[in-house]
Parts: sequence; structure tokens; C-alpha cells
Amino acid sequence: MKNIALILSYDGTNYHGWQTQKNGITIQQALTEAINQILKCDTYVSGVGRTDAGVHARKYVANFKAECTIPPQRLSLAINAVLPEDITVLNAVEVNDDFDARFNCTKKEYAYYMYSSKINDPFLSKRAYRTTYPLDVYKMNKGAQFFVGTHDFSSVRSVGTPVKSTVRTIFHCQAEYVDNHNFVMQNDDTKLIRIRVCGDGFLYNMVRAISGTLMYVGSGKLKPEQIKEVLLSCDRASAGPTLPAHGLYMNRLWYDNTDELKSYKLDV
Amino acid sequence: MKNIALILSYDGTNYHGWQTQKNGITIQQALTEAINQILKCDTYVSGVGRTDAGVHARKYVANFKAECTIPPQRLSLAINAVLPEDITVLNAVEVNDDFDARFNCTKKEYAYYMYSSKINDPFLSKRAYRTTYPLDVYKMNKGAQFFVGTHDFSSVRSVGTPVKSTVRTIFHCQAEYVDNHNFVMQNDDTKLIRIRVCGDGFLYNMVRAISGTLMYVGSGKLKPEQIKEVLLSCDRASAGPTLPAHGLYMNRLWYDNTDELKSYKLDV
Repeated sequence: MKNIALILSYDGTNYHGWQTQKNGITIQQALTEAINQILKCDTYVSGVGRTDAGVHARKYVANFKAECTIPPQRLSLAINAVLPEDITVLNAVEVNDDFDARFNCTKKEYAYYMYSSKINDPFLSKRAYRTTYPLDVYKMNKGAQFFVGTHDFSSVRSVGTPVKSTVRTIFHCQAEYVDNHNFVMQNDDTKLIRIRVCGDGFLYNMVRAISGTLMYVGSGKLKPEQIKEVLLSCDRASAGPTLPAHGLYMNRLWYDNTDELKSYKLDV
Repeated sequence: MKNIALILSYDGTNYHGWQTQKNGITIQQALTEAINQILKCDTYVSGVGRTDAGVHARKYVANFKAECTIPPQRLSLAINAVLPEDITVLNAVEVNDDFDARFNCTKKEYAYYMYSSKINDPFLSKRAYRTTYPLDVYKMNKGAQFFVGTHDFSSVRSVGTPVKSTVRTIFHCQAEYVDNHNFVMQNDDTKLIRIRVCGDGFLYNMVRAISGTLMYVGSGKLKPEQIKEVLLSCDRASAGPTLPAHGLYMNRLWYDNTDELKSYKLDV
């Protein structure tokens, strides 16, 4: 029995999130079916975390245990051959028996994309959030710095599954312009903005609420320094809105203790 | 009766091309229905040209005649409100009565996107062509220069509707790397390549065959200088393959004699 880790990427548009459920096809289900078909087994694929319906992943890690004589590199090509085009296995790697995609992950980075325009960009409609307010990315990035550190993040989460603590550590948080080859709005002084948030863990909807709060900073509804007060208040109503799922991407993952995954440049 | 020009952008993935037909929904049909619904009329929308199923448009121009009391800027917002998210009207502008989106277009530029990777990028699977050959973009761009000028382009077209002449003028042709914010493959020294071809007119599948020929140059199957011989031979078999529709975009359009469209930066 081998323990195999998969590094994935997916466009979440057509899926009901990661986790297998009754009322729609999920990434976990599509992946499990592909693996079981290739290896003629009946394994269970475990992922680094749940992602909601419509959320994407530039990088995602999952693992499963199975009898497998196919070399990992060939295994990923075989799985890709039966997976739909919106899910791709970037790499497969054999890991220690006790490796778990979720529990061995030490840091995660999410990205949230948004742009400001009166008009919808047809190439971004399922991949970035559009707001009609003009946004000041310099102020957004200034505000983002107040999220860095160890704080109680009650103000920027949705109440979901009960958690032991609402304290988390954010290692970096930034807002910046990024290029996109076919962003049709770029003629109108509109640019695509990416927010990146890296932490040791996240509360439910935390990145989407942080992004909504930074949107308020960008539009002038909040001053960058007010983020400090928002966090201290522990009051959800003091922060900005929870932005929609389709602008969110799981972006980077860190597995410090697993050389095999490190060598696959998960953190690049 | 007003003559109104629309500047559009669309993701062609879910459409059977521009032109209305029986066996599937088209851009022309979706747009016509939206306009007729908003203006409560029964007009016919004419486009700058046909695009095949799966082909996209960063910029596309169409026009129609109708009684319309709504100011153009508000009209585009109203049409967008009923259009699906993958088609967007960027601008609406009233034009002279004799303006025709097709016949008044003086130059068109298409873009073709491709990348070289053993693995499919889930965010590009419907938007760029993937080849497994390594590609040398410097050689591709060198080869591209041989398409510039007035030539018989018989070697790089598919036989379709009969045409009076297979001679066309290409004003510029280039291949270059472009950025894409969530291109997952960039870790593997793989970059997204854009080919742009601008001409006074194009034969059927001409840009897709030029792109396939430049792919041959990039992979070393043809030398850049051999493009000259390919064109002189007037032999389709001497050139590269016709690449798939999903990598192709109508990218820019020029309407030199129409100030209204010029002012809308169609050529940016």
C-alpha cells in the first residue's frame, strides 16, 4: 500500500466545491472516480481543505492510499487522461505513510481577484469579482498590513462549524495589480487586482471577508488604519462584506516537513 | 430609425460561433434576442465577420437599425443586463445611416494563444492551445515576419466558400510571450505565447493555419526562412496544421472613416 500525494489545479466554476456531497458533482468526487478507474481500486482521496462551490485552486494538495505499481509521473498523466479538462494533476509523488494533505500543511495562501468596472469582463465573469466603485490599490495594500500578525479574526469570518479558537496568524497580506493577457477592460484604466493572504489557518469565509474589507478601504468607506479597530471590535458588522466565491483561489501551500513536496516547488 | 454600432467582447466557449444557425445557440442570436427584448423590436444584427464555434472576441463590432430613444450609453447597460455573462457590450454608439460593421472595417487583428506543456492548464483549456513540443518564440517571431506584405495565402487556408482572390495584405505579424495572472504552468519555465496577425482581410482558417505554421517554426520542423517557400508554393501541405478554434480571438478592429468608433479606442 502506497501513500500518494497529488498536486492539483482546478477551475471550480462547474463544481459544488471540493467535498463530496449529494446535490452536485465535486472536485473530490471527480478525482476519486478518476483514481479508482485508473488503479482499479476503491480508495478515498483526502484534501488539504474544503473549498466552496465556485472557488478555484492554482495549487491544491490531496493524498490517497492504494496499491500502485505505476511510477508517480506516469500515474499523473494517466489520471489526467480521464479527468475533465477543468481539473489537472500537476504532479504525483509517493510520500511517507503518515503524510496527510490536511494535517501536514503548515501554511496556506489564498488569492482573491477583483476589478472595478461598470461593465462585466466576459473572460473574468467566473474568475474575478467585479465592483463598480473605483478602487485605490495603494490604500488597499496599506490596509492589508494591519491583518498581518496573530489576531482574533472574529470580525472577518462567517459563523460555520464551531471552532476552538478564532485566533489565527497571518504571515503576509498584500494587494497589487496583476497582468492578464485578455483582460478587455484595460483600455479604461481598469486593472485586475490580486489580494494574497497567507496564514497558518483560516476561519470560514475569512479570506472573502478580508477581501470585502479591503474593498471598503479601496473605495474609501474605511481608512487603512481602521482595520486595526475592525479586528479589535470582534464585530462582523464593522468589517466589509463577504465577497462571492468565484474570485477566490487556493494559491500556494507549504509542507515544511515533507521534502518530496518541497522539491515539487509547491511554494513557488 | 437609428443605426447603432455595438462594440462587444465574448468568450466563445459555449457558442456555435457568431452566425445564427439551426443546431446550436450563437452569439448573433443571443445578441439579437437581447436587443429585440430591450427595444421591443424585430431587428437584424449584422457583424464584422463570422467566427467559428469556440472562437473568442476581445473586440467585435456589430450594427443594427431600430427605433431607439434610449441614449447609447444607457442602451449598452440595458442590453448587458439581459445578455449572458460571457457576452458583453463594451459600448454602443450611433453611427451614420450607411455604416456597416462588415464593409466599413478596414483592418482586423486576430490573436492566437498557445503554450507548450505536457500538462493541461485548467484555466486555459478553452482559451489557449496546448502543444507538447518545446517552442522557440524568437524563431516564431522571425518566421512571422515572412507573412507580412501582399501575398497569395493559398498555402495557409482551408477551402471554404469560394473567393475571388487568395491574395491578401498582412500589415503586421508577431509572436511574443504574454503574462497571465493564474497560468499554473509558469513554474515549469512554460510561458503563454501570443501570435498577432493584422490584415486587410483573411481567408477561411488563415490565422489558425498561420499559427500552426509558426508552431512548426517554433518546434524546429520548419526554419523561419522557409515561410517564404511555403507561401510561394501555394500548397497547403507545405505549411503547418490548422490549429483548433479555442486558441483564436478576434482582437482589434479598425474603422478609419468612422470618427464615432475611432473615439471609442477600438484600435487600442
